[in-house]
Amino acid sequence: MDKAFGVQGGKLVAIVGLGHIGGSLAITLKENGFARYIIGADVSLENLEKAMRRCLIDEAVSLSEALERADLLILAIPVDSMLEVLPEVLDRISEEQVVMDVASTKERLHEAVLSHPRRGRFVSTHPMAGTEHSGPEAAIPNLFDGKCCVFCDVEDSDEDAKVLVEGLYRSIPMQITYLGRAEHDLHTAYVSHISHISSFALALTVLEKEKDEKRIFELASGGFSSTVRLAKSSPDMWTPVFRQNRDKVLDVLDEHINQLARFRTLLIKREFDEIYRLIEQANAIKQILQ
Amino acid sequence: MDKAFGVQGGKLVAIVGLGHIGGSLAITLKENGFARYIIGADVSLENLEKAMRRCLIDEAVSLSEALERADLLILAIPVDSMLEVLPEVLDRISEEQVVMDVASTKERLHEAVLSHPRRGRFVSTHPMAGTEHSGPEAAIPNLFDGKCCVFCDVEDSDEDAKVLVEGLYRSIPMQITYLGRAEHDLHTAYVSHISHISSFALALTVLEKEKDEKRIFELASGGFSSTVRLAKSSPDMWTPVFRQNRDKVLDVLDEHINQLARFRTLLIKREFDEIYRLIEQANAIKQILQ
Repeated sequence: MDKAFGVQGGKLVAIVGLGHIGGSLAITLKENGFARYIIGADVSLENLEKAMRRCLIDEAVSLSEALERADLLILAIPVDSMLEVLPEVLDRISEEQVVMDVASTKERLHEAVLSHPRRGRFVSTHPMAGTEHSGPEAAIPNLFDGKCCVFCDVEDSDEDAKVLVEGLYRSIPMQITYLGRAEHDLHTAYVSHISHISSFALALTVLEKEKDEKRIFELASGGFSSTVRLAKSSPDMWTPVFRQNRDKVLDVLDEHINQLARFRTLLIKREFDEIYRLIEQANAIKQILQ
Repeated sequence: MDKAFGVQGGKLVAIVGLGHIGGSLAITLKENGFARYIIGADVSLENLEKAMRRCLIDEAVSLSEALERADLLILAIPVDSMLEVLPEVLDRISEEQVVMDVASTKERLHEAVLSHPRRGRFVSTHPMAGTEHSGPEAAIPNLFDGKCCVFCDVEDSDEDAKVLVEGLYRSIPMQITYLGRAEHDLHTAYVSHISHISSFALALTVLEKEKDEKRIFELASGGFSSTVRLAKSSPDMWTPVFRQNRDKVLDVLDEHINQLARFRTLLIKREFDEIYRLIEQANAIKQILQ
């Protein structure tokens, strides 16, 4: 445990939204001492109760109370709710407090608070970690360890706010990288959003066929599970992501459909040497993923 | 260890093709005593040497020698080579010997030996296990444990041959299921072949973009790795699979492209309620995958 985050130095952290990400952060920051005390707020009373039962938080509070008491507010809510909650929080936040988010899309959010007088108190981050599960029951330790966290448009945050949130992620530890909001949304469209659409579509393809062929899943093995795993992901989280990153997701989806159409054309024309070459090209992903 | 497969009862097994699957079977059948002695053949001398070095096999032999000596021959070679090797093996196999395959596509293979006088000595199986890795260096223990193995057109095999190969899979143990060859090829197109095309295409989509955006993989996390994992798979194995199962793969690929096009249309029209509903439908995969 870093001494700077010992019991005396630890912060009073409010986590707003106690789902998979908020709940996992709660476990992590309590364990490593970054948080001295964690208060939690959630629009769902059921989630609040679950979070108390699982000891994710020390105390359940309202958003208003969180705003009054916390040194640091962490907003871990779907990106559509973020558009409403972040401006409200900035309206009422003091110069000593900091608010950070963990949202998967950034452009619309940043634009919603661009000229807010308290913009500097907000630090925009996206820890690149998560699973297909959701809710406080899916909160797990070690979800973030060693992963990458993006800070977006960090020059728009006050220096002390930035330093505090960098300290939070380094306490886990996560690797920090800095991107502009547009760049962030483009990159996540490629390495996260399209993977989800691909999985949803793959699941629907096979589920559709299963209506006639009841035994089709008997043969499903690790490879299939791996490619459709993300199809278990929550529509509450993902629909707003696709809404906010619509244009970039559409560009990537078009490219992905084009790549599938290349395979289709080559299959139709029986150009298997070319299919071999495409697979070899795709194999280059080996050098990139460890 | 099952007593029936003790040192005295164990078989002399020849494994032809010492890649990921053949090599992993070698480890498994030696460990559990089903095989008393394993001889191995491979067109690649390098693979044969690696297999000896890793002690996957007791002795390296030619295909001819394998045919002379083995009680059971296991063909674990790409499906295009299967079309040549299986008829040759059946031409020379005795009434006491058995040959089995582990091929991913069945219709063309079965048709190639349909009226062969020794067809009964052949047992057609497809253990539904494997990873994106290939070669003898990728041979691992426990690859098959508890997974499903398909027996195809088992009524075309002699009773004693069938019983022997069922014993092999039960010794692992794997769960056995029985399908016709056309049914097998349809089901694998849905739960295996399309997953691979989807992964290859997704890898190509992102690799293409990486030419301009060098930092795009910094943000790749578990979800992305999961959906593109299969893109590391070998073109030597997969090109012949797509060639042999071309028509069924094309049908599934068309359906998959249609499902992606549904998402695309809904994004274009900003029909996010309908996207929510589609994701909810895709979530039904939860009930099917454990």
